[in-house]
Amino acid sequence: MSRIELRFGGMGGQGIITMAVLVGNAAVIYDKKYATQTQSYGPEARGSASKAEVVIDDKPIDYPKAINPDIFVCFSQEAYKKFSKDLKDNGILIVDEDLVKITDENPTWKIYRIPALRIAEEELKSSLVANMVMLGALTAITRVVGVESIKKSIAETFPKYDELNISAFNHGYEYAKKLVKE
Amino acid sequence: MSRIELRFGGMGGQGIITMAVLVGNAAVIYDKKYATQTQSYGPEARGSASKAEVVIDDKPIDYPKAINPDIFVCFSQEAYKKFSKDLKDNGILIVDEDLVKITDENPTWKIYRIPALRIAEEELKSSLVANMVMLGALTAITRVVGVESIKKSIAETFPKYDELNISAFNHGYEYAKKLVKE
Repeated sequence: MSRIELRFGGMGGQGIITMAVLVGNAAVIYDKKYATQTQSYGPEARGSASKAEVVIDDKPIDYPKAINPDIFVCFSQEAYKKFSKDLKDNGILIVDEDLVKITDENPTWKIYRIPALRIAEEELKSSLVANMVMLGALTAITRVVGVESIKKSIAETFPKYDELNISAFNHGYEYAKKLVKE
Repeated sequence: MSRIELRFGGMGGQGIITMAVLVGNAAVIYDKKYATQTQSYGPEARGSASKAEVVIDDKPIDYPKAINPDIFVCFSQEAYKKFSKDLKDNGILIVDEDLVKITDENPTWKIYRIPALRIAEEELKSSLVANMVMLGALTAITRVVGVESIKKSIAETFPKYDELNISAFNHGYEYAKKLVKE
């Protein structure tokens, strides 16, 4: 695997940075790769859309920000509008299907719609773990980090809430696995 | 103010990334500056020392990582050993005085020793807020972000624990203010 660029977009409070940090951790500590994780803020960050990025590679990384993301995981309409344009041809777009209406898509994108917030609320009884549901889906769809690696990263980062978070991850993973098989 | 580079070092679980994210948020959303926040992981991240960086500027930032930090906030001996060397001449070094023994220091550094973990445990009854105590100290010493900006950033990020976190911040701020006056 050569350089892979991931971008996460959403609003403050949706756990976007947490997702990116967990993926970076998993890639490095458990998958033995190199990774950088960045938030870039500018005047555009003063709106309600925020993004976080992870770059993963087998070798040391010179430029730590995403140039043309391979994967974009998106949790809000405004983030979709601002940050989807440079998703590359044949890139993977994963959105929360209740929060993002896809417009102006590039016809080469592979698109996955995951009801992450709905699964979190209905199955886990906590909207706070929608990001963990989405991490499960991301892992099933892209295999960008190992399943056990990302689970270890989650459990070590949230030792007090590991069961809830891992359960949310598993729900997202199983949901998305069916989509990938279809 | 031109480009300012901050580095935070410590072990997993000490809230290093959280500190960096909060400072970046405060600088951009409340102080109307530009900022980037990065974690760079490599083989060295597989040890127990981790670091997170923030770059703040009045204008858009090209290179998002710290080259020679102006400020280094350090929470563990191993992180001190790994990440202190490139703190610049006349840079500001802030350490948890119970966790870091300063060795091989550059004689031009301005050094501040803050018992952040001890204050968190004794005054706030929670070791988890040592990073907030340190953020208060950092703000009092460096003024790199506005006091009200960083408090708003903390309160918005942790709405359920805002009182505890802000109280911890205030303890660190008051402790360090005395050191700065001396």
